[in-house]
Amino acid sequence: MRLIAVDWGTSSLRGALLDDDGSVLDEKSAPLGILNVPGGDFAGTFASCFADWMRPAGSLCLISGMAGSRQGWLEAPYVACPAGLADLAHHLRWIERDRIAIVAGLSDERDGVPDVMRGEEVQIFGAMRLCGIESGLFVLPGTHNKWATVRDGRVTGFRTCMTGEFYGLLSRQSILARTLQADAPLDEAAFRQGVTRAGNGEGLLHNAFGVRALALFERLSAPASASYLSGLLIGEELRTQSLEDVGEVVLIGAPELTARYALALGQVGVETRMLGAEATWAGLRSLRAAM
Amino acid sequence: MRLIAVDWGTSSLRGALLDDDGSVLDEKSAPLGILNVPGGDFAGTFASCFADWMRPAGSLCLISGMAGSRQGWLEAPYVACPAGLADLAHHLRWIERDRIAIVAGLSDERDGVPDVMRGEEVQIFGAMRLCGIESGLFVLPGTHNKWATVRDGRVTGFRTCMTGEFYGLLSRQSILARTLQADAPLDEAAFRQGVTRAGNGEGLLHNAFGVRALALFERLSAPASASYLSGLLIGEELRTQSLEDVGEVVLIGAPELTARYALALGQVGVETRMLGAEATWAGLRSLRAAM
Repeated sequence: MRLIAVDWGTSSLRGALLDDDGSVLDEKSAPLGILNVPGGDFAGTFASCFADWMRPAGSLCLISGMAGSRQGWLEAPYVACPAGLADLAHHLRWIERDRIAIVAGLSDERDGVPDVMRGEEVQIFGAMRLCGIESGLFVLPGTHNKWATVRDGRVTGFRTCMTGEFYGLLSRQSILARTLQADAPLDEAAFRQGVTRAGNGEGLLHNAFGVRALALFERLSAPASASYLSGLLIGEELRTQSLEDVGEVVLIGAPELTARYALALGQVGVETRMLGAEATWAGLRSLRAAM
Repeated sequence: MRLIAVDWGTSSLRGALLDDDGSVLDEKSAPLGILNVPGGDFAGTFASCFADWMRPAGSLCLISGMAGSRQGWLEAPYVACPAGLADLAHHLRWIERDRIAIVAGLSDERDGVPDVMRGEEVQIFGAMRLCGIESGLFVLPGTHNKWATVRDGRVTGFRTCMTGEFYGLLSRQSILARTLQADAPLDEAAFRQGVTRAGNGEGLLHNAFGVRALALFERLSAPASASYLSGLLIGEELRTQSLEDVGEVVLIGAPELTARYALALGQVGVETRMLGAEATWAGLRSLRAAM
């Protein structure tokens, strides 16, 4: 039975055709995220991308990500943590019975404030499969980073940090943009300096202004400012996590991002392992097995 | 001897004509901040606004604010803290000797990272005069807030927080903007809820996402979200200050902003006193007396 694994996010649509043993037979991606679906025609867009893969009888498609949000194809619920694969399997929303399903997201509530994820839960389950572990701390850097705790195969809780979005706003639209080259390659020394600075506990609102002042006094170049700011933000994120008894953190995401987290976590003595897009395909395969 | 007191900032130009005893005889303001000076002609813009006030022999004009920055009329230095009125008087930069001068800014360095202010130092000295105090904690809310410590008439140190700019970016340009009415009037209960939430110490990167999640679950309306976010930011600012032995905080700025700080500081048991634009005029008057 062929599995068509689809990750339909805000800005892009990616799919993989997997055979029975999980090998990737083919992959596709298009800039057709849920906010860019022509005419809001999700069914048509899906067909134009995946009709050929879906043709054989018995083909099953599982779709994770923002396709299940209110602005997506079909709203799928948020399953409350702790949640495992069986819970996700139980809450699938079928577009076509036994043929195309949307995967639910996860929610977690702490002190009266909820938190949500859509798509990352599948990557976490995939990473567990690929790493052969059932417990641990999983970090998924991106626009809205997720820090998720897993125990005995279930996501017990998680927190979102708007680190990626803050970086975009501060580096491109704030006063810092005047003396900062947002797309500069990583300057490791400046990045580490930012991570260290965040540890002073004086807070992002103050430390961010230091980027401006250092540039005014010509102590930080425009390319180095970008890495310093990135280090400040990731360092601030680390400052608010409990990393004491964490043996290893599993990082899932784009290599240029996970590499930065590996650097910052290494700086505070935490080991890391990195995974990329393959985690999504492995997670959807695990989900099918749990159905 | 008449004093023409001018506050030339980034976005606006304001002036007051003061007589010998400090009474304000006249005031003017124009949207001619240093970034909006036609053709970069500072002298011409100054003349078109204040030539009539400057006509009597012996008129003296002191200009504080961003007019002394690199992008301004004439670059004035930053005087290192601790600094008092005598230091500012010593570092005036004359546009026309004994007639028009630009006031220096202040700098403060901590752990190898500098901080700067331009214009706020004059407001602080003015507030000292108006309140009849020589020591205390002064807070100047705005795009880039200043928290300044004063002892025996000298500014001993200060910190900038980008709170106002963060509010603008998050409320208007981030994902939060989708469910937030940035210009909604203050909802005091939601504001206090945000201040309290910031005290959880989980950091702004995480707590800011709570605004989104609360809105998704329809637990926070668009107008209330604005106040909640404002409370989160000001609460985060307070979290990183040493407020233990502070008897009273002097707040200087626009009433709609200082009122929010008074609320948040009141929530943590700190008393406040509020001053507005009059602090600038009083500060420039004190500076003339120190020349």
